[in-house]
Formats: sequence, C-alpha cells, structure tokens
Amino acid sequence: MELYPVIMAGGTGTRFWPASRKNCPKQFLSIIGEKTMLEETLLRIKPLVPEEHIFIVGNKEHHFLLQKILKGFRYIILEEPLGCNTAPAIGLAAVHLKNQGVVNKPMVVLPADHYVADGETFRKIISLGSELAEKEEAIVTIGIPPTRPEIGYGYLRRGNEKKTLAGVKVYEVKEFVEKPNYTTALAYLNSGEYFWNGGIFIFTPEIILKEISRYLPKVYEGLKKIEESIGTKSYPEVLDAAYKNFPSISIDYGVMEKTDRCLLTIPGDFGWSDVGSWESVYELRKKERDNAGNLIQGKVISIDTRSSFIFCPNDKLVVSLGVQDLLIVDSKDALLVADLKRSQDLRKVVEELKTHKLNYLL
Amino acid sequence: MELYPVIMAGGTGTRFWPASRKNCPKQFLSIIGEKTMLEETLLRIKPLVPEEHIFIVGNKEHHFLLQKILKGFRYIILEEPLGCNTAPAIGLAAVHLKNQGVVNKPMVVLPADHYVADGETFRKIISLGSELAEKEEAIVTIGIPPTRPEIGYGYLRRGNEKKTLAGVKVYEVKEFVEKPNYTTALAYLNSGEYFWNGGIFIFTPEIILKEISRYLPKVYEGLKKIEESIGTKSYPEVLDAAYKNFPSISIDYGVMEKTDRCLLTIPGDFGWSDVGSWESVYELRKKERDNAGNLIQGKVISIDTRSSFIFCPNDKLVVSLGVQDLLIVDSKDALLVADLKRSQDLRKVVEELKTHKLNYLL
Repeated sequence: MELYPVIMAGGTGTRFWPASRKNCPKQFLSIIGEKTMLEETLLRIKPLVPEEHIFIVGNKEHHFLLQKILKGFRYIILEEPLGCNTAPAIGLAAVHLKNQGVVNKPMVVLPADHYVADGETFRKIISLGSELAEKEEAIVTIGIPPTRPEIGYGYLRRGNEKKTLAGVKVYEVKEFVEKPNYTTALAYLNSGEYFWNGGIFIFTPEIILKEISRYLPKVYEGLKKIEESIGTKSYPEVLDAAYKNFPSISIDYGVMEKTDRCLLTIPGDFGWSDVGSWESVYELRKKERDNAGNLIQGKVISIDTRSSFIFCPNDKLVVSLGVQDLLIVDSKDALLVADLKRSQDLRKVVEELKTHKLNYLL
Repeated sequence: MELYPVIMAGGTGTRFWPASRKNCPKQFLSIIGEKTMLEETLLRIKPLVPEEHIFIVGNKEHHFLLQKILKGFRYIILEEPLGCNTAPAIGLAAVHLKNQGVVNKPMVVLPADHYVADGETFRKIISLGSELAEKEEAIVTIGIPPTRPEIGYGYLRRGNEKKTLAGVKVYEVKEFVEKPNYTTALAYLNSGEYFWNGGIFIFTPEIILKEISRYLPKVYEGLKKIEESIGTKSYPEVLDAAYKNFPSISIDYGVMEKTDRCLLTIPGDFGWSDVGSWESVYELRKKERDNAGNLIQGKVISIDTRSSFIFCPNDKLVVSLGVQDLLIVDSKDALLVADLKRSQDLRKVVEELKTHKLNYLL
C-alpha cells in the first residue's frame, strides 16, 4: 500500500554523553549495531516503500552528518532551522507531502533513535496501522505492550476493542497519560489496559494538519506560510521566520492528549526499546557480552573485569583491570567513567558541564 | 665537604603505565609534585654540592628528555648506550670521576625516582655517610627504617654498632638480603635488626672499581677500555662495544652481597619511598586529596566519587560518576581504568600488551 514514513531525526539528547553531543546526537551513533540508529531505522522501514517516499526531518545543525549518511539515496530530507519538538516537525512533513499531492495517504511518524528487535512484525503492524489510518480516517498509534513498570515512558490507556485486523486486535485509545510514578506504573502494568507510548503515529497529512490548526493554531499559521513558499526562493527565509515563532511542543502534548478525533491503537509486540541510556544498550546487546558479562566496543584489554560496558570506538587502547559494573566511554576530548547503573544520571553530568562553562563539550 | 652525587636515571619500568613508557619512564614523570622525579632528586641533593659535581647516568634513548630537563645546568650527563642495571652505570660514573682526578672522594649513588619527605635530614645523613666513606674507606649504605612488612624491597641486616657520628648511630652491615616473603618480612620488622635497602650507596671511585674488578671482572675489563677512551674520538664506539658485553647486573647482587670489605650503614629516617605504584603515590599525596578522598590531577569533574586517583594531566575532560577506589590514568593513546588496590598488577597489563603485539604502547 502507499504510505509515507516520516523519520524524526532532529532530536538532541544528553543521555549518551560523551559519545553523543549537540552536534552528534544519539541517532547518529552506532551504539546498537555497526550502523547508526538512523540508518537502522531506515533499513527497518525500507522494505515497505520506495526510497523517495521516505521523509527525514532533521536539524540544519546536523546537515553534514545527514548528508554523509543519506547521500546517494532518494530520501527526502527536510532540515529544520531549529528544533521545536515533534509537533512542528510533523507539521513540516505534512505540508511537504501535501505539496506533493499526498493528502489522504498515511504518513508514518517514526523516531530515528529507537530499537526494534523484530523488523518483520514491525513492518506488518505499520502496514496494518496505515490501512486503518487511511480507511477509518483515524489517528493510529502503535501501543507497545509494557514488560516492566517503567517510569520513563508515557502510556496509552486502551478503550474498547474496535476490530480485528489480520489477527491483530485494534483498540480505541481512552487517553494518553504522561510519565507515571512507580506505583502508578506498576498498576498500569498489572491492569493490562495500558501500553507504552513509543512515539509511532500514523495519520494522513490532511487529518494531522486539521488537528494542528485546531489545537496549535500558531504552529498552523507558520506551516501555511511554509507551504506556500515551497519551491520558491523565499522558502529558507519563510522557514526560519516560522520556526522562530513556533512553540517547542510535542505532538503528544499538543494534539494527542486533546483531540476528540477517532484515536486507535494497535499493539506492537516487536521488541521495542527507546534506548534511553547506556545501561539499556548494555541490556539490549546481551548476546554480544563476553563470558564475564562485558560488552566491549573498541580496542580493549580487560583483565579481571566483570559486567562492564566499555564503549571506546576510537583508536585508543583501553585497559581495564580488576573492575566491575563500570561504564567507560572515551571520546576525543572527554572521558566518562561511571557506575553503569547510574547511566541515567548523565543529565547531572551535563548540568555540571554547564556550571563549569564547558559548553564546547555539550 | 667534597662529594659527587651520581644520579641513576637510566631506569625503565612498567608500574606507571600508561603514563610511563619505555621512552618516558617514571623519573621523567611529574607524579609526586609539579616537577619530574629526576628534578626533585636534583633539587634535594643540590644544596650540598656545586652543580658540576653532579653526575647523571641516563639512557641514550632518553637523550632528548634529559636535555630538556637538564639544559642550562652544569651537571655532567653520562649516557649509556643500553641499560645494564646499576653495576655498569656506577662503574661508568666511577671511571669518569677517576678521569677527572676524583679517586678518593666519595661518590653518592642516588636513584632518580625515589621520594624523600625530609630533604634536610636526607642531606645531613648523606653528608655523614660521605664523611664515613672517605675516612673509613668503607662502603656506606643508607638503611631505611622499615615501617611495614614490605615484601617489595631488599633488606640490610645490621651488625655491631660501629660508632656514633653527630648523634647518629653507625652500624656494620651483616648481610644484604633479597626481597623476603611476608612472614620473613614481618620477622625482619619486629626484630629491629633490619633496614630497607633504598639503593643509596656511598664509596670512593677507587674502592668501588676495586670491588668491581674483583667480583665483576668482565664489567671491569670494559670499564678500563672506556676509561682509556674518555676524551678521544673513539669513546662512543668503545662505550657501545663495552656495553654490548656487559651483563645486566645490580650493584647489590654483583658487589654488595659478596664483598668482604667494611660495609657500614647509617639509618636514614627521612620519609623515604621508592614510589613503586600508583597506589603509593596516592598514599604519599594524602594531603592533596579532596574531602571524598580523591587525588585528582587534570581537568576532572567528579560526581559521587570516592577514594579514587585520577591522573589525566592532558587537556581532556574526565568525568567520574558514582565510582570508588578507582585508578584512572589517561594518555594520548592508552587509557587505564583499574582497581586502585591492584596497581601493583600493572606488570600483568604490560605482559598482555606484549601478547597482543602492542609493543608501540610499552
């Protein structure tokens, strides 16, 4: 079927410091396999569509990284002048699609930096979701069946069963809920009524633009101007001006939590992870660990070392001796040695960098 | 009084890897203070003698490092074409001294890479020892009063009290003993009869050359040829040829353990350490640790870090998070992360480097 993947590749993050930086965020890192996460995402969706149907929304700041990775392909790259979270990014893709005459075909919003274990199931679910979005004129989101009481994700509460599509149950969405505390997360898990919100959405450009015009009129106003300038000389200027006025807002908060349109969810049981920390990479790559439980990327000699993650993919030799549960990440200008279980606290580190006025290391 | 310090600066070692390398061993590192250990050694002895009385025996391989540190001073630098332990190095200094007409004046052999807390007492003991060596025609060694059952050092067993010199007792040496096991070391400590052998010896060139001729005739033969060539064009060639035939042997094993000449010892209670490991540096620099017990050299942000030694004196930022008892040493091409208590095991690391054919990192 005809569908248009829109890869959200404009994110920045601090949780993979010092490997990730402002000018090289997670989607450009090879932390899960040999390829960058963006490339893995592209490879995952590619069997479903022709290359030129794939839109990648990135940040202008990452122009050269995007070019390096995407050169030679027929993907369509949309560069944002600054990052304003997912609502403007999705809107930008929608007006470009509309400009190409794609109005009532599904666009599939996919984060560029997530992990999926089972690509085949993923593609099946995306196809079903796209069919649903087109036929039902619905907003479809993929619900990830939770496997633990995670407090780092948003959740979807499912409502009535809507139908069964190729053996997969489709539910109405009762509500989108923000990151819960532990007790609530545990209750969500046990209820069987909740899914993780994995940030995968499917809708037509027409529908999402309608929703944006209703709930985010300021964003819509800018998008209209951008739409009119596509293909003209003034496009970059109009784009800059529009983005300067955009609020930074996610599609979840800006539209999904508010809309009264038909919201459907399909469970996506394909081994999903948002790869939110070094520790989660260590967990995901269990099979690649050595006998002592070490996950090692780089030129490393480990002596009496256990349960550690050493990520030093440059030319330097790293020797570990008599240590355990460590995270060691080396880069050209910064080195991190941390308790692997505390890799969530890298935000603290980034705060410290700011305090010390070490902005060049962000 | 007239005396001639001979600084043994030709050592190589593996215990401070990756900061120390074959081409930059410990004596050239600033691990105890701002100056290199060689410079600290020179500053310690300097108040006793004119600069041009100080001989430094180094390795030709370290020519540029020696020049960098010693340029502009009037020290006499003797470069060995290869390292053959202390007996040939001391012999080389002795024949050079003899060539300058210094035959019956004391030469004071000092390792270039040891630590002394109390320089004043050190100089007093060296002066007394020199007086003794000259007047008694004795071989004098400074005995370090042991403070723990150390198994990493050689010991001296004292004999009868010979005399008291300026309030300091002088003993005969009954025997030199090699590194003991723990039980023996404990017995030595408790007996009060043993000193650590700190590698500080005082004797005249004439006496030590006689001893070398007796116990190390092959070394003596080479030294004679070197002596004859001093000041001639053929000196480098003769030196090379002689060193090629020298056995690698310490003065302790080659002469001290065998001689029947008068061997005396003066206790040197001046806060001595051979600085044998990163851990010992961490111990010696107790006062410089922060409130959490961290000794930090370099650009470091430590968060929830305790009792660790971070030595990264280059420009890179190091962040430690939630770790303890760690040793982190970064260099341009190699990084070490180790249990600080296992810094003695760096030899294992160097063996591993050889196994992996990483000789360029030695």
